[in-house]
Amino acid sequence: MKRGFGSDNHSGIHPEILNAIFEANVGHAMAYGEDEWTQEIETIFKQAFGQEANAFLVFNGTGANVLALKAMTQSFQAVICADTAHIHVDECGAPEHFLGGTLLLVNTSDGKITVEGVEQYFKNFGFQHHIQPKVISISQPTELGTLYQPDEIVALANLAHENNMYLHVDGARFSNAAAALNMSLKELSADLGVDALSFGGTKNGLMMGEAVIFFRPELAENFVYRRKQVAQLYSKMRFMSAQFKAYFKDDLWKKLAQHSNNMAQLLAQKILEIKQVQIVQKVEVNGVFARMAPEIIAALLEDYFFYEWDEEQHEVRWLCSWDTTEDDINSFTEKLRRITMR
Amino acid sequence: MKRGFGSDNHSGIHPEILNAIFEANVGHAMAYGEDEWTQEIETIFKQAFGQEANAFLVFNGTGANVLALKAMTQSFQAVICADTAHIHVDECGAPEHFLGGTLLLVNTSDGKITVEGVEQYFKNFGFQHHIQPKVISISQPTELGTLYQPDEIVALANLAHENNMYLHVDGARFSNAAAALNMSLKELSADLGVDALSFGGTKNGLMMGEAVIFFRPELAENFVYRRKQVAQLYSKMRFMSAQFKAYFKDDLWKKLAQHSNNMAQLLAQKILEIKQVQIVQKVEVNGVFARMAPEIIAALLEDYFFYEWDEEQHEVRWLCSWDTTEDDINSFTEKLRRITMR
Amino acid sequence: MKRGFGSDNHSGIHPEILNAIFEANVGHAMAYGEDEWTQEIETIFKQAFGQEANAFLVFNGTGANVLALKAMTQSFQAVICADTAHIHVDECGAPEHFLGGTLLLVNTSDGKITVEGVEQYFKNFGFQHHIQPKVISISQPTELGTLYQPDEIVALANLAHENNMYLHVDGARFSNAAAALNMSLKELSADLGVDALSFGGTKNGLMMGEAVIFFRPELAENFVYRRKQVAQLYSKMRFMSAQFKAYFKDDLWKKLAQHSNNMAQLLAQKILEIKQVQIVQKVEVNGVFARMAPEIIAALLEDYFFYEWDEEQHEVRWLCSWDTTEDDINSFTEKLRRITMR
Amino acid sequence: MKRGFGSDNHSGIHPEILNAIFEANVGHAMAYGEDEWTQEIETIFKQAFGQEANAFLVFNGTGANVLALKAMTQSFQAVICADTAHIHVDECGAPEHFLGGTLLLVNTSDGKITVEGVEQYFKNFGFQHHIQPKVISISQPTELGTLYQPDEIVALANLAHENNMYLHVDGARFSNAAAALNMSLKELSADLGVDALSFGGTKNGLMMGEAVIFFRPELAENFVYRRKQVAQLYSKMRFMSAQFKAYFKDDLWKKLAQHSNNMAQLLAQKILEIKQVQIVQKVEVNGVFARMAPEIIAALLEDYFFYEWDEEQHEVRWLCSWDTTEDDINSFTEKLRRITMR
Repeated sequence: MKRGFGSDNHSGIHPEILNAIFEANVGHAMAYGEDEWTQEIETIFKQAFGQEANAFLVFNGTGANVLALKAMTQSFQAVICADTAHIHVDECGAPEHFLGGTLLLVNTSDGKITVEGVEQYFKNFGFQHHIQPKVISISQPTELGTLYQPDEIVALANLAHENNMYLHVDGARFSNAAAALNMSLKELSADLGVDALSFGGTKNGLMMGEAVIFFRPELAENFVYRRKQVAQLYSKMRFMSAQFKAYFKDDLWKKLAQHSNNMAQLLAQKILEIKQVQIVQKVEVNGVFARMAPEIIAALLEDYFFYEWDEEQHEVRWLCSWDTTEDDINSFTEKLRRITMR
Repeated sequence: MKRGFGSDNHSGIHPEILNAIFEANVGHAMAYGEDEWTQEIETIFKQAFGQEANAFLVFNGTGANVLALKAMTQSFQAVICADTAHIHVDECGAPEHFLGGTLLLVNTSDGKITVEGVEQYFKNFGFQHHIQPKVISISQPTELGTLYQPDEIVALANLAHENNMYLHVDGARFSNAAAALNMSLKELSADLGVDALSFGGTKNGLMMGEAVIFFRPELAENFVYRRKQVAQLYSKMRFMSAQFKAYFKDDLWKKLAQHSNNMAQLLAQKILEIKQVQIVQKVEVNGVFARMAPEIIAALLEDYFFYEWDEEQHEVRWLCSWDTTEDDINSFTEKLRRITMR
Repeated sequence: MKRGFGSDNHSGIHPEILNAIFEANVGHAMAYGEDEWTQEIETIFKQAFGQEANAFLVFNGTGANVLALKAMTQSFQAVICADTAHIHVDECGAPEHFLGGTLLLVNTSDGKITVEGVEQYFKNFGFQHHIQPKVISISQPTELGTLYQPDEIVALANLAHENNMYLHVDGARFSNAAAALNMSLKELSADLGVDALSFGGTKNGLMMGEAVIFFRPELAENFVYRRKQVAQLYSKMRFMSAQFKAYFKDDLWKKLAQHSNNMAQLLAQKILEIKQVQIVQKVEVNGVFARMAPEIIAALLEDYFFYEWDEEQHEVRWLCSWDTTEDDINSFTEKLRRITMR
Repeated sequence: MKRGFGSDNHSGIHPEILNAIFEANVGHAMAYGEDEWTQEIETIFKQAFGQEANAFLVFNGTGANVLALKAMTQSFQAVICADTAHIHVDECGAPEHFLGGTLLLVNTSDGKITVEGVEQYFKNFGFQHHIQPKVISISQPTELGTLYQPDEIVALANLAHENNMYLHVDGARFSNAAAALNMSLKELSADLGVDALSFGGTKNGLMMGEAVIFFRPELAENFVYRRKQVAQLYSKMRFMSAQFKAYFKDDLWKKLAQHSNNMAQLLAQKILEIKQVQIVQKVEVNGVFARMAPEIIAALLEDYFFYEWDEEQHEVRWLCSWDTTEDDINSFTEKLRRITMR
């Protein structure tokens, strides 16, 4: 497959991550997380996210999201999220399936929900016929490559807590957000009032692995049973913990995220020079969303794979990855330029 | 951790499997199974299991089992299995959780259910108050290290099909069964009337990966949606497919399984010489189940980790792995001998 | 409680219905629907809805809806409905809970969804990450007291069937719709391509009882097990069947529905004379939706109970019932007039 | 249908209960339990079961059981019950369906579980692979017509509480138990340590209605949402509350239960005279379980409907009802005598 901008999970494993798997492949280790790598990783997560943080490893982002949300809701309770949220659009109904409850959607143009957008659902409290809002779930960064500013997260956290609710962050690309905002992982989560975080690894250089991080001890209490029950407990866990250990070593997560963020800035700069292509969302992390004539999209798709994010609006998504090179961007924008000059 | 006999998932990744991951780590690949490795693996599974076989990769054994069973049942239907079945004992209720239905248990002494044991539940057909049996699920090999003979599987398959039911095989260690019976994978599944198989890789040298294999096209029809919905779809799938590709190359699966089976035979021979220890199940694959005085167990546990399978009966489980060595066995049995001679 | 317009289930049991319970209360009868009343009612339903109709009695409307939808969907499939639909707004998440799937909402101003509104979700077909649309569910009449015209239902039925989907009708007040359109029950369901109908009785004079009616035999196939499993099987069923028998006798359903429809027309006429009150939806069955100054609402609520349907818009819902009298309307509108003249 | 001993829900509505429905059928009343009858009934339940008791009305016994259990468990937790329990045998998998968890079965010969029987499952605590026991559920009286003595219930309650678990009682015929033991309802529930009770009405003279009663406030906390979500909230609730009001008036519940208990004693006495028929369970409430030659069963079934409880053992169940007469018993036993004398 030609290198491109289809998704940040089209890229492979970062060499240091793969090396960590290699080095962990010695002798015997206890299974299911009782190995020494996993014991160590718990400390590492506390160092990164604060002493209140309890982190648990799972296979993938959908698993992380449903387990985080399950710890915070009962079936008669609802999760309020953006209409663009991955949990609504891209998980084939997994949240409703696991929670046995409902997602209440807030319309957005940039993937970010606001206090006002959430409050429309607050008239439901206490009326037995209506599902009861319990969680606000945001994506940081959003699925449209935009960022919540710290004060926006604080506002949503306060709103949640004042109403006996929780704030969940779907952070499949949380490293990109922290790098872009130049904040530590703790500063962007625990310090802002986040109650639970789905923290991604796979899209930023891991072979496979995500973490569910709870910032309140009561949410972590029964996690291990739920993880097992929903088939997210990895037997040879050392090989996932070893990846995360390498991910945190010398802030590798940050270097990789900064790189893909920088590449997206470079891509956006080049795109700005092509007047037939309009960038439609702020470029704040590693993605560029752009609109252009359908003929241009079609011609480009002959050489490159990427998603048409909004087919009716002719908007496409281009993502940069930890392994994106300047050459990748030059070839791609050169191709795009040639198409637009036809 | 000291090398031992605690579980076959205490061992690591076979070098050829790890090398396959390494080799797949080049450039970009489509995600979610649309990569070339996964396309290829579909053909390889058909070569191994027959042209009727549709194989899908998932993260772990519990995921494989629930997805296999979900394709065969509706919520008012039951799965009949042994009281020792992994799906009943060791998955924290995952089958009931995902199926929304019931497991009906057959008592066994050796982990194997019989036609008679299953038929006790057949009086329930057609009565609206009673859950409706729909699947017979067996483990091959069983959780007690025993094997169903081919004619026993045929009898259960016929029983299922005569009653409009399906036969599912939990084959977390299916390679060990095929190696022990000297049958091909197809001969031990499709040819005996098996409808769906959970085919394990992790316990026999993979880093991570199991396959759900359906032998009837209608069962495979909607699998991809269910796999996504229950959070078992791996994004960077190439790294799982590459492992399975290596697993089938030159029958690596068989070599590894034969080795661990052979090691269990060797372990059993050595144990037979120790009269204070009684082997309580036939040693047919890679496990040895043995009974001894609790003091012996306690002393041995000081040096080695393993599970007391039946605490009341003082029965323990020892499993050999693809990486078990004769030295491992000699050290272990030597230690055991010394304890019994105190 | 003062008589009023709060809901059509604030009224009691029609005397002929209650008398039917009384008459059925003799001797012993088989339980769970094997009694003679229930046998007879099956024929009566076929006479009313056509020979293809299979009717099953359940306790309430939510039970009817979830069981109808469950027969038509698997967990990875979605139901498309109006944002005003009872199944979304007023069932505390029951559909998501029972289906394990998702509702996809169509925004409406009058409670009616259109072909265009539905088609926005059709880009999801066949993509494993997206929940798969399988049912269009409409309310006839809608929760806003409006009606789908027959050709509108045909259009939605055709749309559904062309896309391998089903059309479900939530008919909690279906009798009111048939009476208003002067159509037989069959003409308004089977003849228009409806696949499943939740047919209400409680809101139109029954003590308790709703029917799930399937117009395709395959949908009815396993209903009895599902009804039992979701706790909707009534043991002393004769007392529900007897009510429905009386409901169909001499078209009692139609007389009662016509009466409440007529009363709503009368109420609307009186309201039209009060210029401070605007009727905001067509008055097509037994409900009047009106907007007025919040002070008027508050004053009226001192004497009468009713729901503020849209608090922000100061819109209220007034429903007439089978037992609403002209006196009820005169007293109510007189009170309203006095308030507006203050 | 001929009067007989098939089930206590083959009988109809007691005249005083039916009269209560008749009397409640005046004017308008708030729906969904906000009516005056329901407000009153809450006080009546507290008088009967103690001030700690929070009672909620639901449609049927399965609804009561699943809602009681749902309040006490999460999906990774298990309910321990007898292998004869209604929740295991006769609810088509409803508990597993609603709880998303597992029932762990205790084998019994008389329908009663013991402390020892329960404790076999206590080795599972704290091990993430195993479902976690959380509730002991007993039937009082049992499905075999036997009774737990008060001290037996206390022992199970203590066992539960010592292990951070709850004790649930399925009391579909709880009135019969209290009458037989000559205890008040409170003495047989709250005073013995019961945490939640499914309290039946339908089998003892009601048209329809069961109550879920919680003896700990935290269990009642979110009940109304769950009841709505699982479709057990009755709209015209006044007609169910009115029944329960009549049921408690002048201890009608006790008179009816004593009567059916007495009739069972009379039936048993008559049966004892027929040496070809063996009574196989203690006759402690309103049921007689008896074994006889299959030819006798077949001949009797020509005239009377009843269930063969254990077909292999040729055991049948005969139940007396609130409306059973001495004539009913004389005719039945006379018929039985004639058959045995052929």
